[in-house]
Amino acid sequence: MATQDGFYLENDNGTLHRGLKCAGVITPPQTVTDKQSTFDVIVVGAGYAGLTACRDLCIAGFKVLLLEARDRIGGRTYTVDVGGHLYEMGGTWVHWNQPHVYREMSRYRMTTLSTSHTESSAGHNYHSTMFQGKAGKMEPETAHNMTEKAFRMLCDVDGRLGRRVMPYPHDPHYSSEAKQWETLSVAQRLEQIKADLTNDEVSLLMSSLSSICGASMDKAGFFDVLRWWALGGYTMDGVYETGDQFKFAAGQSSFARCFFDEAMRTNNLTYAFNTTITSVQDQKNRVVVNGNWSAKRVICTVPLNVLHKVRFEPTLSPNKMAVANINQGAKFHLEVAGPALRSWSGAAWPVNRLCHGSGDGLTPEDNTHLVLFGSNKDFSAPELDGRDFVDDCKDLHDMDVKKTIWHNWSKDPFAEGAWCMFAPDSSFKHLEALQQRAGNVLFANSDWAVGWRGFIDGAIERGALAAYDVSFDLSPQKIESKI
Amino acid sequence: MATQDGFYLENDNGTLHRGLKCAGVITPPQTVTDKQSTFDVIVVGAGYAGLTACRDLCIAGFKVLLLEARDRIGGRTYTVDVGGHLYEMGGTWVHWNQPHVYREMSRYRMTTLSTSHTESSAGHNYHSTMFQGKAGKMEPETAHNMTEKAFRMLCDVDGRLGRRVMPYPHDPHYSSEAKQWETLSVAQRLEQIKADLTNDEVSLLMSSLSSICGASMDKAGFFDVLRWWALGGYTMDGVYETGDQFKFAAGQSSFARCFFDEAMRTNNLTYAFNTTITSVQDQKNRVVVNGNWSAKRVICTVPLNVLHKVRFEPTLSPNKMAVANINQGAKFHLEVAGPALRSWSGAAWPVNRLCHGSGDGLTPEDNTHLVLFGSNKDFSAPELDGRDFVDDCKDLHDMDVKKTIWHNWSKDPFAEGAWCMFAPDSSFKHLEALQQRAGNVLFANSDWAVGWRGFIDGAIERGALAAYDVSFDLSPQKIESKI
Repeated sequence: MATQDGFYLENDNGTLHRGLKCAGVITPPQTVTDKQSTFDVIVVGAGYAGLTACRDLCIAGFKVLLLEARDRIGGRTYTVDVGGHLYEMGGTWVHWNQPHVYREMSRYRMTTLSTSHTESSAGHNYHSTMFQGKAGKMEPETAHNMTEKAFRMLCDVDGRLGRRVMPYPHDPHYSSEAKQWETLSVAQRLEQIKADLTNDEVSLLMSSLSSICGASMDKAGFFDVLRWWALGGYTMDGVYETGDQFKFAAGQSSFARCFFDEAMRTNNLTYAFNTTITSVQDQKNRVVVNGNWSAKRVICTVPLNVLHKVRFEPTLSPNKMAVANINQGAKFHLEVAGPALRSWSGAAWPVNRLCHGSGDGLTPEDNTHLVLFGSNKDFSAPELDGRDFVDDCKDLHDMDVKKTIWHNWSKDPFAEGAWCMFAPDSSFKHLEALQQRAGNVLFANSDWAVGWRGFIDGAIERGALAAYDVSFDLSPQKIESKI
Repeated sequence: MATQDGFYLENDNGTLHRGLKCAGVITPPQTVTDKQSTFDVIVVGAGYAGLTACRDLCIAGFKVLLLEARDRIGGRTYTVDVGGHLYEMGGTWVHWNQPHVYREMSRYRMTTLSTSHTESSAGHNYHSTMFQGKAGKMEPETAHNMTEKAFRMLCDVDGRLGRRVMPYPHDPHYSSEAKQWETLSVAQRLEQIKADLTNDEVSLLMSSLSSICGASMDKAGFFDVLRWWALGGYTMDGVYETGDQFKFAAGQSSFARCFFDEAMRTNNLTYAFNTTITSVQDQKNRVVVNGNWSAKRVICTVPLNVLHKVRFEPTLSPNKMAVANINQGAKFHLEVAGPALRSWSGAAWPVNRLCHGSGDGLTPEDNTHLVLFGSNKDFSAPELDGRDFVDDCKDLHDMDVKKTIWHNWSKDPFAEGAWCMFAPDSSFKHLEALQQRAGNVLFANSDWAVGWRGFIDGAIERGALAAYDVSFDLSPQKIESKI
């Protein structure tokens, strides 16, 4: 089935394709009928948070209506098949140290992974750089070691590699020392250590962090970088191993299908895709969605940056609405002629549109699959991104681009951003508020996870908790005790 | 409530106490009545594998009978309260890199942890040694660095710290290179690297590995040590951080209660404690347990070493029965007078009864809580262990022992061993057979987990999978499609 999400540009002839093949598209797109308007629970959004909540509640015997604005499951993750090769358009990498996602991978027997960025010593095995407008080249190991040194210095906030300031990566606010680091931008933290770094070390670090944060370094909060560092086991290699190396051999959309299919098997799931939510009214004895459907509870999994588009009655706490996901990062897949670039990587700083890229295996035509990250801030329109971006890539390294495949998450009306990163001074002030329920409406999204926030893992964390809380609310014992 | 498991010896007056206070004891001990004999699923065993399976199936709407030989939940984990201080009698430590257990901790909001073995620089801050019968003493950092060097050399089987031989710690058989390492005992692997180690380095390593394996080094399989190494992120510090550092502030038994209580809330759970299983007959259309109860499916979570005590009809595959858990390790808690030993640690090699011990915080009386590991092979009777063991501890360091608290897992008729470790040449031959179902009987125990085998995490891994498979078997869609 084809999704209306995403773009594929044939670079040789300029043809722009939409309607890409995706295992996450559900048919028929709607099972809800006019006769059905009352449910136990309505889950808004079919990303991993929504899918997890929906599945858990269906298993527990609740009648669930799942509403999704897109034509597919997966939210900010989906896989397209172009020419027999799978491209991950959003969230991609998973790891056994991500507890929520790995528990599901194990349970669905979806532990077969393929590895990204690990083929080395083949073809153009070097790291291209475009620092301050000057092209350069270095050994991958040199680039790694320089980046690692700078990354480590950045995150060694306590002489214990961050272990004292953030001893529990899944509870980043735990230490009383944490708060002071939460007020800094990445740029401000860099100022504190810059004197001990060479220009190239700074550029390599900034390129890496731009790709992690998807924001300019003066806007990005240092605390989220420290959080990734702690989650990765307090090493840079750990950050990249957990966040950038292992992906589903069968694709994210196949994994997401496991959740959806299990929910369907219970016969408790009703759904409607292509259905945008505009209003959620908590009328105390029931919650009404879009003035049309009602349920005892609603789990809203709408991402942080688009929560303002839903009219909530009563209105949501200002504390919930006063924070944003600042990540406007871009991700592009290129298929380039021949296998020569499969071990290649490159970095640019300052970031124009491109900040980082590397080989991610070969396509069936024995061409190279490159994955590149950049910033969406300077793009004009989603469908034009591909052309502009390829020009930047060619500045970094000569390449004969055959295909460009991407999704502009910034211009996506149901996301308005990529994986969640906060500005300074956001987490301590707003994270708890984001997690709080409002009466009969619960909120679940990776954007406010405590652990792997911004990751698939965080989405499942939040979805499972919301379902647990709703199950507890509506459990027979609890209801009996009220009678 | 009091459990009949475990011993507490008042060392000053020699009084031996049983009936220790434990939050895992369930009252009433039985809810099944003579009138009820047919269920959807019977789960045998209320350790974490059984609790997980039971809970998942109850939530999914199946009528479940839980049968347990002991008077408590938790299997090879439980917590006793002696004098207002919690002692973990079996499996203790958990970590956010253990996906199955951490998913549950998050969902039950049981993420408040306390740390073991981390207080340093107070009182007797040194490492006592008893190597080849000679008493010695070293700086903790020296002992750490020497052990780390030896541990790393042992596990660096490929010049890549084991990453090539075991790239997926949750799939230890993945690499074709793995098998050759699986035929070695720890002693044989030591021979390969011994020339580059000092005597003290060997003794420190062997003491540590004795405590990990609970078996003599010629019996213990090197592959399981390599597995722990890989699971710990390919560093010794990772092994100890994930396996020996963080425990539940509220105790394991409180965590286990979360599973049990959630199952109870569904009204689908019936149970009987103090009920030993002797027979499981698969009669194709139903499975009969103890000739008394029947169900469509049985999930048997009996540990590997006691599986032979249950009469299965048809008999189980010989391949399932031809392997054992070789871990006959002992764990003792001592309360010793005063806080001076709270930073102390010690090691003995060769192992008589004691191999390793260290401070684990202070008790309410401001005494030191020590946790010590050893071997059960030379003990005569469970109730005498405590006295013998204390003598060995006093050889290692002078101490005024007030309380000795322990459980002899080797002599425990429902365990016959501690956390699962294999002899050489066991994993490739038997692991898959152990995981296989036999008709309508499924088997779930941490002893044959793929990831954190021998850990609580592995128990939950297996329990969740068994429940998933049974749910799938008995799902309405599947049953409908047969009609």
